[in-house]
Amino acid sequence: MSELDQPATFDARLSGADLRDAWRVLDSAERAEGFRLLDPTEGEEFFIELPTIDQIALLSSLSPAEQRFWLRALAPDDSADLLQEATPEQRTEMIAMLDEASRREVRTLLAYAEDDAGGLMSTRFARVRPEMTVDEAILYLRKQADARLETIYYGYVLDKEQHLLGVVSLRELFQAKGSALVQDVMHTELVQVPEEMDQEAVGRLFAQHDLVALPVIDATGRMKGIVTVDDIVDVVQEEATEDIQKIGGSEALDAPYLEVTVLEMVKKRAGWLTVLFIGEMFTAAAASRYESEIQRVTALATLMPLIISSGGNSGSQASTLVIRAMALGEARLNDWLRVLRREVIAGSLLGLILGLVGFARIVLWERAFPSEIAPHAMLMGATIGITVFGVVLWGTLTGAMLPLFLRRVGFDPASASAPLVATFVDVTGLLIYFGTAVVLLKGTLL
Amino acid sequence: MSELDQPATFDARLSGADLRDAWRVLDSAERAEGFRLLDPTEGEEFFIELPTIDQIALLSSLSPAEQRFWLRALAPDDSADLLQEATPEQRTEMIAMLDEASRREVRTLLAYAEDDAGGLMSTRFARVRPEMTVDEAILYLRKQADARLETIYYGYVLDKEQHLLGVVSLRELFQAKGSALVQDVMHTELVQVPEEMDQEAVGRLFAQHDLVALPVIDATGRMKGIVTVDDIVDVVQEEATEDIQKIGGSEALDAPYLEVTVLEMVKKRAGWLTVLFIGEMFTAAAASRYESEIQRVTALATLMPLIISSGGNSGSQASTLVIRAMALGEARLNDWLRVLRREVIAGSLLGLILGLVGFARIVLWERAFPSEIAPHAMLMGATIGITVFGVVLWGTLTGAMLPLFLRRVGFDPASASAPLVATFVDVTGLLIYFGTAVVLLKGTLL
Repeated sequence: MSELDQPATFDARLSGADLRDAWRVLDSAERAEGFRLLDPTEGEEFFIELPTIDQIALLSSLSPAEQRFWLRALAPDDSADLLQEATPEQRTEMIAMLDEASRREVRTLLAYAEDDAGGLMSTRFARVRPEMTVDEAILYLRKQADARLETIYYGYVLDKEQHLLGVVSLRELFQAKGSALVQDVMHTELVQVPEEMDQEAVGRLFAQHDLVALPVIDATGRMKGIVTVDDIVDVVQEEATEDIQKIGGSEALDAPYLEVTVLEMVKKRAGWLTVLFIGEMFTAAAASRYESEIQRVTALATLMPLIISSGGNSGSQASTLVIRAMALGEARLNDWLRVLRREVIAGSLLGLILGLVGFARIVLWERAFPSEIAPHAMLMGATIGITVFGVVLWGTLTGAMLPLFLRRVGFDPASASAPLVATFVDVTGLLIYFGTAVVLLKGTLL
Repeated sequence: MSELDQPATFDARLSGADLRDAWRVLDSAERAEGFRLLDPTEGEEFFIELPTIDQIALLSSLSPAEQRFWLRALAPDDSADLLQEATPEQRTEMIAMLDEASRREVRTLLAYAEDDAGGLMSTRFARVRPEMTVDEAILYLRKQADARLETIYYGYVLDKEQHLLGVVSLRELFQAKGSALVQDVMHTELVQVPEEMDQEAVGRLFAQHDLVALPVIDATGRMKGIVTVDDIVDVVQEEATEDIQKIGGSEALDAPYLEVTVLEMVKKRAGWLTVLFIGEMFTAAAASRYESEIQRVTALATLMPLIISSGGNSGSQASTLVIRAMALGEARLNDWLRVLRREVIAGSLLGLILGLVGFARIVLWERAFPSEIAPHAMLMGATIGITVFGVVLWGTLTGAMLPLFLRRVGFDPASASAPLVATFVDVTGLLIYFGTAVVLLKGTLL
């Protein structure tokens, strides 16, 4: 249909794409109103694609009858996600709205932690029996096209006790002889996901194997469900977002930036900032031990920010690299010695480079604009050069080891945020600085 | 088979899983040797799942005959990825090893930028015609099971000029009446990917729509290929890694942390650190304007690190949150006013909290351990409180606006790394600090 053929009248109906575009700037009443304007198919698609947090908000501004309708439109794994996020009262109310079969499934899924493979999986997968023929299996999968299965493109071969024996794709069935038995064409070397595996690890499995769906297995080898790759894209993105927000020195926001209320956001940000601020107070304590030195050579004080920031920057850099390597499974806890060895070399080289720049800065600057310290410029330059070398090396090692240490004692490595490392390194940086200055400048400037 | 039934002899063969576990600690000769020990099917799976960078390294330690064999085992989109990463000489050699048809396909794919949708896509998708019946389409897709198509589960409906008219899944074909026409059962409201769309944006499309494959379209509406979600998991993870490494103040490593040589890593890290170090030198220039004040009240100097770190930390936090919101498409360039408004409120509240803590620190500390400034503790406390409020607000606003500004002038917002923001804020922080001190303390301490 060319543009000229388009009917000249406009439709009062809203498209899903229009509503999606406007979504962020609408209040909840406007959202409900817009949503009601969608035609039924588009409405369903729109609702299913909404982030869980928006689904709950939207539902709570709809009538009970509408709530029941839309809740039932969701697959059990998606309604379980939604109920996971709802308040306890909402949850009780909403569970009551489901039909009996879904209610049982959702209750099972709710028993899993939200971040486990079990919490991600769908229980609606296609089961085939090992002694079926290929033709029977194809016919069976074909008949399931109407059922609300997650996918009919993979048949999971189970024995009577629900143990997973193998898997066969519809495509492979098409390629096999119709009279062959499923057990003879199925794959038996399977990548399996234990039900309590963390979703971040599940994401890594998918990234490594390029598969579309993975079976979830309990401790006795019984198959519980499947995780599909389309859910994993969200997981991978969500986990990266959490890590990034923690690296930036904030709690994870758990919702889109522009949709969290400002007050909630301040709550998530104030905690860490206050802790860091209090930690940073030790710098004042450290520096005041050297008040008499500062009094004699004020230039020492004016260089403090340069010194400590070089430690903070190199520390942030190292910790961020190690945090990400750990999240991707590239560096594990027992790689700590390899990480340490690499960072000793990297930190020394980086320290050497910055130390030389620092040395040059003092010597050249004093030659160009001589100050009180000009007669001892070389000595002052050496103080800065050696200090920067030490501080950068120390910052790098602290930054690299802190995430590994945190994992070792059971915390999230991403809590080794750039600001935390910087704060940690600042205090020691000042002690290295004044310690070096006292040794090198005693008898000349000090 | 219970454990007792296992044959008691051991096989000299290596499994793919064993090799994968040992991979990171093997040198290139050992890797090639281990790889040759795999049985052919496992070897193929292993090779296909290797990261591109390892595929190239492995290939270059194999014989030309082996190289040719393994190169031909890859799908064209994967060999294009591999050739993208190879040196120009390797590329010429390897292209010559492909068969004629693959060579043509690979050349087409190589013409796309690596990070575009076109660079991600596979050209091997299943085409169906609108006037086919459902039964004919099923039969056709079934026959394609042997062909090296990316997926046979979706049939793309094209007209004679290769314009995309619609898409129909095998599952939907199973559900439809066999005599219906494809054009009557196909979906026509399609999510399409323009061929030059950035892969980060493609990742967002998949995260939003929970789809398994998306068609790639050129400017005239002709279908060029499909992008599948299993490739997108890698893309999303890769893009997050790049952002995280940049936020940490380093160039993207482009390879696993433990596999980059230390020297290469130092190269990627030294540049930014040096730039930041030179930028930070301005703090010394700023502070030395106030040497006489420092001489009179050394306590002013010892509090410098506390002041500037509060600005740096709040700036890192804000910039990280905004960078991630932009990467997820939650905050766009023309949201800048909304971001600014939110951060003015958040920054003021955070500044208020930290300012009060800072005020309390001085007043209580001087009451507990009186120093030279004790008689003017309230005034000194007010100086710190007001300064911290100003510095935190300023840090927050700078951190939040810098990523938006960088995007506006065509740079990557993630370059607004935590260390860059901190450095940027440090200099201004000192000026705010000493400016406030001079105004408030003139005539008493100064």
